[in-house]
Amino acid sequence: MPSVDICFSPELLPLYQLEGRVAVIVDILRATSSIVTALANGVTHVFATAELDECTALGRQHGCLTAAERNGVQAEGFDLGNSPFGYLPGSALETRGRAVAISTTNGTQALRRSLGADAVVIGAFLNLQAVADFARRQQKDVLVVCAGWKGQFCLEDTVFGGALAERLADTFDVRSSDATLAALHLWQQAKPDLEGYLLQSAHVRRLNHLEAHQDFAFCLRLDEYPATLPIWREDRLVNLGDR
Amino acid sequence: MPSVDICFSPELLPLYQLEGRVAVIVDILRATSSIVTALANGVTHVFATAELDECTALGRQHGCLTAAERNGVQAEGFDLGNSPFGYLPGSALETRGRAVAISTTNGTQALRRSLGADAVVIGAFLNLQAVADFARRQQKDVLVVCAGWKGQFCLEDTVFGGALAERLADTFDVRSSDATLAALHLWQQAKPDLEGYLLQSAHVRRLNHLEAHQDFAFCLRLDEYPATLPIWREDRLVNLGDR
Repeated sequence: MPSVDICFSPELLPLYQLEGRVAVIVDILRATSSIVTALANGVTHVFATAELDECTALGRQHGCLTAAERNGVQAEGFDLGNSPFGYLPGSALETRGRAVAISTTNGTQALRRSLGADAVVIGAFLNLQAVADFARRQQKDVLVVCAGWKGQFCLEDTVFGGALAERLADTFDVRSSDATLAALHLWQQAKPDLEGYLLQSAHVRRLNHLEAHQDFAFCLRLDEYPATLPIWREDRLVNLGDR
Repeated sequence: MPSVDICFSPELLPLYQLEGRVAVIVDILRATSSIVTALANGVTHVFATAELDECTALGRQHGCLTAAERNGVQAEGFDLGNSPFGYLPGSALETRGRAVAISTTNGTQALRRSLGADAVVIGAFLNLQAVADFARRQQKDVLVVCAGWKGQFCLEDTVFGGALAERLADTFDVRSSDATLAALHLWQQAKPDLEGYLLQSAHVRRLNHLEAHQDFAFCLRLDEYPATLPIWREDRLVNLGDR
């Protein structure tokens, strides 16, 4: 029976085996939620970079849009910030049919350090079912890699891990890792009022302070895009659902 | 208002500031529970080492007892294993009035990496109140350092962190760290039946398999030694309560 394990910080990745596993990268607020929203709404592919200048360079090289935030607000000289609303119909900039280079510190770190896995996919509450379906088809051990907040444990990514473990619990072993057990318990507490529960989180309070409450509420919608699965191919994220 | 934060693995310590803080080292099963029990029952001081041969050398150098386990059983050539029962009245070996060199991989790592803190103390459920009282007197930020299991997140150490945060919640900030929030939630779930709750843990099941269930139940007793506080002085752990 394949298992679900959860790595609470990219800093802990050296302790985990990646080969033979599916890595699910999670940065609920807001990188992975934005990437899922982008690919679900017609963005052709996404480049993920840590540094702002690398993001600008990729934008020029590939003639694609650029998206970046620093300290919670859109960085100067970039087409988009880190909000999923930038990719929704009716937003100021048409993103459908375009590629986007996204700069995100925590999310990119988690992604780049996980490339040794058999498959690297992007998870968010928005595409929870797509991630669960993919894991089921692969029948391999799953490692949820939480981007965390500057390397530290972060509640919303952990609770996502618990939600995924719950969806997989019938055919995956979710009880042999203490991290997964803890995430499951936290998810079960959070589930009846996910928004209220996560509003306690330090990171969430920081974000709300930045008037991103609208983003926060959107990022917690379960299965908004149940067939969108961003997957790493060569040097970019594409939507497996498009294939 | 000073704060309580929790570091889930010694591997994450580089992300935390130690200076100005009180570090509470936790390895509930069983290193820190054994150290508390030893000092509460008349052991004069404890040396903590990672390696077996260093432990033997310390034993010779200081003419003290040696305690070590590997894979859950007493290591050959050592006076004691890693069980707190070795220090209780009526055990095979008289330990009262003696010093002990203890070898413990996870616990020693956590301890050695935390020495930059203003004070380094040993925490366990057995001396929870002593730790809380000390933190209150210091009025400094507290960092609970979980020894974990081979660097990975471990449920029983985390739940201890939650229990300590609860005791300090009236005069410490326990809500500005997601790790502390999560630990508090897990502790509140665990509290009504701590033994039953922790029996789910992978590490605990491993230990019970090794017929250490008696140790497990003992290590979960709350405030068995409410005035015993092992504290690091120069090169050893002594009982602050003895001073």
